[in-house]
Amino acid sequence: MGNTIGQMFRVTTFGESHGAALGCIVDGCPAQILLNETDIQRELDRRRPGQSKVTTSRSEKDKVKILSGVFEGKTLGTPIALIVENADFKSEDYEALKDVFRPGHADFTWDMKYGFRDFRGGGRSSGRETIGRVMAGAVAKKILTPVKIEIYAYAIQIGSVCGKNIDLNFIEKNPVRSADPKAAAKMEEVIKNAATEGDSVGGIVEILIKNVPVGLGEPVFDKLNADLAKAIVSIPAVKGIEFGSGFGAAEKKGSEQNDPIMAKNGKFSFGKNDAGGILGGISTGQDIIMRVAVKAPSSIAKTQKTACKSGKAIELKISGRHDPCIIPRFIPVAESMVAIVLANHLLRKT
Amino acid sequence: MGNTIGQMFRVTTFGESHGAALGCIVDGCPAQILLNETDIQRELDRRRPGQSKVTTSRSEKDKVKILSGVFEGKTLGTPIALIVENADFKSEDYEALKDVFRPGHADFTWDMKYGFRDFRGGGRSSGRETIGRVMAGAVAKKILTPVKIEIYAYAIQIGSVCGKNIDLNFIEKNPVRSADPKAAAKMEEVIKNAATEGDSVGGIVEILIKNVPVGLGEPVFDKLNADLAKAIVSIPAVKGIEFGSGFGAAEKKGSEQNDPIMAKNGKFSFGKNDAGGILGGISTGQDIIMRVAVKAPSSIAKTQKTACKSGKAIELKISGRHDPCIIPRFIPVAESMVAIVLANHLLRKT
Amino acid sequence: MGNTIGQMFRVTTFGESHGAALGCIVDGCPAQILLNETDIQRELDRRRPGQSKVTTSRSEKDKVKILSGVFEGKTLGTPIALIVENADFKSEDYEALKDVFRPGHADFTWDMKYGFRDFRGGGRSSGRETIGRVMAGAVAKKILTPVKIEIYAYAIQIGSVCGKNIDLNFIEKNPVRSADPKAAAKMEEVIKNAATEGDSVGGIVEILIKNVPVGLGEPVFDKLNADLAKAIVSIPAVKGIEFGSGFGAAEKKGSEQNDPIMAKNGKFSFGKNDAGGILGGISTGQDIIMRVAVKAPSSIAKTQKTACKSGKAIELKISGRHDPCIIPRFIPVAESMVAIVLANHLLRKT
Amino acid sequence: MGNTIGQMFRVTTFGESHGAALGCIVDGCPAQILLNETDIQRELDRRRPGQSKVTTSRSEKDKVKILSGVFEGKTLGTPIALIVENADFKSEDYEALKDVFRPGHADFTWDMKYGFRDFRGGGRSSGRETIGRVMAGAVAKKILTPVKIEIYAYAIQIGSVCGKNIDLNFIEKNPVRSADPKAAAKMEEVIKNAATEGDSVGGIVEILIKNVPVGLGEPVFDKLNADLAKAIVSIPAVKGIEFGSGFGAAEKKGSEQNDPIMAKNGKFSFGKNDAGGILGGISTGQDIIMRVAVKAPSSIAKTQKTACKSGKAIELKISGRHDPCIIPRFIPVAESMVAIVLANHLLRKT
Repeated sequence: MGNTIGQMFRVTTFGESHGAALGCIVDGCPAQILLNETDIQRELDRRRPGQSKVTTSRSEKDKVKILSGVFEGKTLGTPIALIVENADFKSEDYEALKDVFRPGHADFTWDMKYGFRDFRGGGRSSGRETIGRVMAGAVAKKILTPVKIEIYAYAIQIGSVCGKNIDLNFIEKNPVRSADPKAAAKMEEVIKNAATEGDSVGGIVEILIKNVPVGLGEPVFDKLNADLAKAIVSIPAVKGIEFGSGFGAAEKKGSEQNDPIMAKNGKFSFGKNDAGGILGGISTGQDIIMRVAVKAPSSIAKTQKTACKSGKAIELKISGRHDPCIIPRFIPVAESMVAIVLANHLLRKT
Repeated sequence: MGNTIGQMFRVTTFGESHGAALGCIVDGCPAQILLNETDIQRELDRRRPGQSKVTTSRSEKDKVKILSGVFEGKTLGTPIALIVENADFKSEDYEALKDVFRPGHADFTWDMKYGFRDFRGGGRSSGRETIGRVMAGAVAKKILTPVKIEIYAYAIQIGSVCGKNIDLNFIEKNPVRSADPKAAAKMEEVIKNAATEGDSVGGIVEILIKNVPVGLGEPVFDKLNADLAKAIVSIPAVKGIEFGSGFGAAEKKGSEQNDPIMAKNGKFSFGKNDAGGILGGISTGQDIIMRVAVKAPSSIAKTQKTACKSGKAIELKISGRHDPCIIPRFIPVAESMVAIVLANHLLRKT
Repeated sequence: MGNTIGQMFRVTTFGESHGAALGCIVDGCPAQILLNETDIQRELDRRRPGQSKVTTSRSEKDKVKILSGVFEGKTLGTPIALIVENADFKSEDYEALKDVFRPGHADFTWDMKYGFRDFRGGGRSSGRETIGRVMAGAVAKKILTPVKIEIYAYAIQIGSVCGKNIDLNFIEKNPVRSADPKAAAKMEEVIKNAATEGDSVGGIVEILIKNVPVGLGEPVFDKLNADLAKAIVSIPAVKGIEFGSGFGAAEKKGSEQNDPIMAKNGKFSFGKNDAGGILGGISTGQDIIMRVAVKAPSSIAKTQKTACKSGKAIELKISGRHDPCIIPRFIPVAESMVAIVLANHLLRKT
Repeated sequence: MGNTIGQMFRVTTFGESHGAALGCIVDGCPAQILLNETDIQRELDRRRPGQSKVTTSRSEKDKVKILSGVFEGKTLGTPIALIVENADFKSEDYEALKDVFRPGHADFTWDMKYGFRDFRGGGRSSGRETIGRVMAGAVAKKILTPVKIEIYAYAIQIGSVCGKNIDLNFIEKNPVRSADPKAAAKMEEVIKNAATEGDSVGGIVEILIKNVPVGLGEPVFDKLNADLAKAIVSIPAVKGIEFGSGFGAAEKKGSEQNDPIMAKNGKFSFGKNDAGGILGGISTGQDIIMRVAVKAPSSIAKTQKTACKSGKAIELKISGRHDPCIIPRFIPVAESMVAIVLANHLLRKT
């Protein structure tokens, strides 16, 4: 259960890492929107492994195929089914891990919940599950574009290296997807060092959303921040999320936290943005700003102590080509989830 | 829209701060559970204003009334409707604020979204909206009790004063609801000082959930942490949430973040709990640990610059008796939202 | 579960026949719609018992109270909570029926499902459950009025007496709510005869919806006719529903069933209306026509054989003042359910 | 929107008649149920065109492909994605119908709703849309089998020829899927005669569900009969549905309609079954009996008057190989929808 998100822009994903295909259904996309496979492939390529020296060197093609919902290059208003067929994986590589509970992974909890799981490549708890999210996000972006909404996600911290300056044009120009031209090289080094040690590293991603119209979000349970929090925390590896002043708000007085409201020529603006663009669960029209804590990838070459399903204690070294830091590939997934939430709220706003 | 949360344990809330009544409907509560007004009143009293010197001195009775779903002291399996009728408020006090956008409040966004709002006491965006959450949470707790699940929320930070030692028995014995007997007095002082200055203060709440059975949560969008994040972020004043190692995970290596798994006599355990009790969106059986950033209350006596609906710039001093720190009263609300999410996932788990 | 209907115009009902109150929450009603208690009371009075000689002589006041969602006579865009408080019922009258499974009633199935029920007046399976539906329907009608949609329901058959001529102005002028001035008196007689015999009688209600805009309804599972079917069949006592040519379509050839489409001055029309105003689940712009089979009320004074919970066989005569035919009071409920479905589809249509 | 049905057993369908593929996602199927492509293909073959002389002579292979949710022959508890890839259709055949509103079809309403549609073979409003329903129904049946629930649907009337005797073993032995060995030949003749005239014919399908456990269904909006009504009326061509005594209930007295309840050795039974197996929206444990009115197929060779999108009046003869009566192929679709509803209610019953 729970493979669907959204009310008016509804996304359902499916697929196991090494199954026949992974994909998504988007229900609720309005008719007559221009959409083709290139639009979606572009986003898929951004999350693809093997893009750079700081991601896994595995090479997966991940070619999108539109099964329904699009005709003559335009959406029909019917469900859009998108799939990526899996090439032949060497599943035998995973045979050895069949009964092992890899630390930090979902092997243990899945076994306890279902009593049975597809152990090949993590099955449905694999990072490949996010393929469906990215494809749906590409469709969502088509709804945001006419409203001029822009979503930027970037590494603001890798290990203990923090970015300070934000140059949005720099993000796609460096393998870490940092927005800070100065910090990027250091962040890259941190990742490479972790890889060399057979280890991995975490970080923090900042998400900036520009040109959000005022009035998005529902005021009680479906607050815009609540829906964004759910969507982002549902991405594997997320350990926390904050909005605007975030955890820093703990030390602020009310007089410091409150953003003054100004009016000029019938237009309202704010003196600063500690709110992070949302008040009472509804967008203010300012930029929405969030930060997301992302843990280090769980698959590491270093020896770890763990247990097998049978109860036997073992020492585990995970071989294979794994990401030493997931953040560069997490970024397009986070953008996609944001796009899905915003498209849903745009369509809910009647 | 968006006034309902949950699939199998569904909570809908309603009510404006100064309307005739506030309340909730709980649909999906199984039949034959013992439930009476005392069970609910106990929780309501914990969120009630006027409990101590660190909360507002306003005195609201907030008496629960069960309208349906309970017969001869037991639930019927039908919707449980619970209300709190509003006593006569002095709504005229708010007449002056009718067209004012109070900084940090939802006045501006509501006006932009609906073009019309109940300005008395914040209307539906008032903290009184949480009355329905607390009453529903009291029902949810009745479902958790037989499973032995225990939920503890406590102030871990007020302003810059941090709690370190955790004594769960101390929480209800101090007005701040700190779990640290040493830090509590300092926290109380921070709040009083803010009040004296006509200001307010924020903090961080830690939530600890004990005896969660393994296997709660759905693995993709409805991950247990994702649903908890949404539920908690939907509470007014929340600026961030983190699980387990949280934002600290950014600086951790994979070898540090991963919790080793041990087996003994056919039972599995973990060497530590950086996961915060959830892996792959599913409970591990360890304690669930979250921390929540709560901003300082927006209503302060200090002069603030803001604008009216008409566009006029004004200087605003909010009079009346407001909470200088919402955390003591936020705590039962947070526990309630956690209870609602857990009851829902317990009932989804077939 | 299952006490909520609709996506964008969401109605949740609650309440047992002899509980403290019955009511509903309407979530999704747009802001700034004029609404007051009189609008709702008018519809409640149409379903009220004791209106005429062909309904029960019980007199229930059923006064609506608006608890939330309305301010200064206008909707706020927040949940509208509406209740009817129960006057003091003589519940002891029902004590005798506590363990009896009344034939045709839900006593048996509720006991098997929940193991426990409120036996007073049928509890939640009472006809009084429809109070919430009628109040929500009154709100829904406020959304339909600006679109000029008109809903008419009337008795087209009582026992074996059929109405043929349709005079919509006559419906509220006769106690049966027949639309046929000639048949009405005979229908009334059929009901009175059944009452005299200590028995009851069924019939058929026709529902006519005028001025439905083209394009309402979703084409697959949420077809307009599918949603109407669910909404109507969910009303107690309904045994069947048909649209347009209905069961008569069985004997029709395709060439007879298909409605020819004509065009004139850029406007399309249909040569006849065997479709009943819906094609492919979407409204055509023609009148929507449905017919609903309604069974005779189950509570009769005649002796019936049945069993008690304990397994004992008994002879049962149900005393008290029951409706000999529910159709006159079913009609406002049916209209309400239609209004709720149409309001929901109007708001879903973006 | 509206391409999903169910809460705990959730089915989403997608696909246009001549698009790349049609399919469904089943979310909520428990783990560890044996499932393979043969299970699904068997049901697909029953709805396949070209089975007999009374269905269209078009030959479509309709081969199922499992994309996800099944591993080593067992369900994983993850979404089951099932597709049928379309072979190369001669879509040019439809080019001529591009702007024509075929009477009885959804061409007109789709054009009015979306302003754009896939005209090839009816697009999403084609009967091929039911492929997803049948595949999901095959999965649902896997959940019903351990409970021993059996679903039988059969032609009880074709044109004016009615079946009287019910021999459930005969259904799959005759091309009409009649349950009456005597009426079957006459029904077949009625269909062939209609085909010869270039016309089509409707009928009535009866659905019998055996071994339904007592207690399925939710008592208010999600009554078992209400959910069945929605599911069945959502199938193309349905004009009506009735339960138990159905429209015949109109002429029955309460004393005739009520089914007496008997008890023997602690087990309850009913003297007859005018209720159709459901009381108060909850299954009684008796057989569930429904009848469904199905209109004649809209595509006929006879000349029809209609209009083009441009407003031009035309005379239309629909060529190609169309079903002269849809009932034989409707039957597996109806069974599938019933299975989906029952699986959902079985899983909702906690």
